[in-house]
Amino acid sequence: MHVIYLVAIAAEAASGALMGMRRRMDLFGLCVVGTVTALGGGSVRDMILGHYPLGWVAHPEYLLFTVGASVAAALWARRLHQLKRAFLLMDALGLVAFTVIGCNIAATTEVHIAVVVLMGMITGVFGGLLRDILCNQVPLVLRRDLYATVSLVTGMLYVALLELGASVNLATSMAILIGFSMRLIAIRFSLALPVLEADLSSFEEENEKR
Amino acid sequence: MHVIYLVAIAAEAASGALMGMRRRMDLFGLCVVGTVTALGGGSVRDMILGHYPLGWVAHPEYLLFTVGASVAAALWARRLHQLKRAFLLMDALGLVAFTVIGCNIAATTEVHIAVVVLMGMITGVFGGLLRDILCNQVPLVLRRDLYATVSLVTGMLYVALLELGASVNLATSMAILIGFSMRLIAIRFSLALPVLEADLSSFEEENEKR
Amino acid sequence: MHVIYLVAIAAEAASGALMGMRRRMDLFGLCVVGTVTALGGGSVRDMILGHYPLGWVAHPEYLLFTVGASVAAALWARRLHQLKRAFLLMDALGLVAFTVIGCNIAATTEVHIAVVVLMGMITGVFGGLLRDILCNQVPLVLRRDLYATVSLVTGMLYVALLELGASVNLATSMAILIGFSMRLIAIRFSLALPVLEADLSSFEEENEKR
Repeated sequence: MHVIYLVAIAAEAASGALMGMRRRMDLFGLCVVGTVTALGGGSVRDMILGHYPLGWVAHPEYLLFTVGASVAAALWARRLHQLKRAFLLMDALGLVAFTVIGCNIAATTEVHIAVVVLMGMITGVFGGLLRDILCNQVPLVLRRDLYATVSLVTGMLYVALLELGASVNLATSMAILIGFSMRLIAIRFSLALPVLEADLSSFEEENEKR
Repeated sequence: MHVIYLVAIAAEAASGALMGMRRRMDLFGLCVVGTVTALGGGSVRDMILGHYPLGWVAHPEYLLFTVGASVAAALWARRLHQLKRAFLLMDALGLVAFTVIGCNIAATTEVHIAVVVLMGMITGVFGGLLRDILCNQVPLVLRRDLYATVSLVTGMLYVALLELGASVNLATSMAILIGFSMRLIAIRFSLALPVLEADLSSFEEENEKR
Repeated sequence: MHVIYLVAIAAEAASGALMGMRRRMDLFGLCVVGTVTALGGGSVRDMILGHYPLGWVAHPEYLLFTVGASVAAALWARRLHQLKRAFLLMDALGLVAFTVIGCNIAATTEVHIAVVVLMGMITGVFGGLLRDILCNQVPLVLRRDLYATVSLVTGMLYVALLELGASVNLATSMAILIGFSMRLIAIRFSLALPVLEADLSSFEEENEKR
């Protein structure tokens, strides 16, 4: 599990650093965006729960890891581009691993089971959301794609298995396996949630005047 | 008061979902933006004060409500557009109700009276501010309009009435009534704070170089 | 030290207010952006550490100061523009002073020494980062310039001097003096970290589809 977690952190940091490169950030900026992408979801979760100390405050060695992954991604950006399939796989693994870890930590704080699932999802997707805010774009995760949904289903499955009496190991393996497969299927077939359309132009006008 | 609070949450969630629609977000995105708009102000207040657990963590049923309101707003977007006056009324009610609730919660934490008023304002306006950050635009509330000012006056009035010995019920009713009227007058006559203008182009240049 | 801190807060608030003016914000918006720029770095630090109450919650008189500095900066924007050298000096002083103060506060919370340095940097640069998010632009501090690096070196120097047995006064003076000089040299000679370049267009395309 720890290895999966490190792979997940590296994948997230790399995705942040690459996004930062496209915004022409300097080396420091790449490292900040990479680190925020990798550790931001868990940090938001812990600050919402009041669960101190934050993971990377207690274990600052993770920061070396995210900075290293960010720099490596920047240096090998051209190669990563050729490896984009491997990259998508790592990112998908990261999503489900972060979700399960997030559920686990939330479960230690005696919150309602729905909040446990939600905290898993926040751990899984808020890093990418913060990355996109730093890069000044509407967060990808809000726009399309079965990405957050995969995280939600993974978390629900994990929590349900635990409730049904499964061991943590079994629940973790099952949730990661099924969540990961869902994500791969979503990528392969370009599955996405619907985007509702409506002519809102005149509403917008009114609102703009507000 | 509880009914007013639910109306306020629904109005805020709907405004978030509609803004998300204009950014062509998918269903998940609409629900996130709606929920953040409705519950974000109170969450920021509680995280600033270290006041745990957050409201929606203790009462996750509010999340069902914000998600429901977001989906409903998206489905009936065309109709809401025709109902924009009702919508502005609900939003105005939400602003003052959130402000009073925020003041109340801050008052339980033994902070300075000025911080109580400020926390009311943060509760009232930060949801919309986070909504605009997620939608990648300069927050409306910072740009024009007697909106935050209404929240500020409502909070000051509420706190002053309590200090003068008024009952919570009386102070709440008076503050909401007067704040709501102020907001309606501001909408009706398009009142706004001044925007200072200056030729900053050469300053900007220098700063860009920074 | 207290005087330096107030100068630093005023400089940061002014930089926020001026940035807000360029986004055509109203008076309220200028004050919010100014205040967030001045106090946001320390607030993020304290919320990450779970270090309550936040500085300005315990001492709300700082808010009067940031609001005053924001309004003053807006009124005298044209003059500030002529004073841009003084402004850059104040901003540089603010950066290093915030860094040292941030390290000091983090050091009281028994975190790893690397986290102390990092908290100094967050105190120094996150105000400007939040300012740029509110103003809907990619944060300047992530894009170029020896700015965050100066903060990092200042914090490392300060912490190292304390570890070597120097008094707080000596460490503070030395760190501020050397950090301030570094920043002035960086401005004078336009020193900056490298920006890595790569043709990421096809990677981007893939990612957009994600």
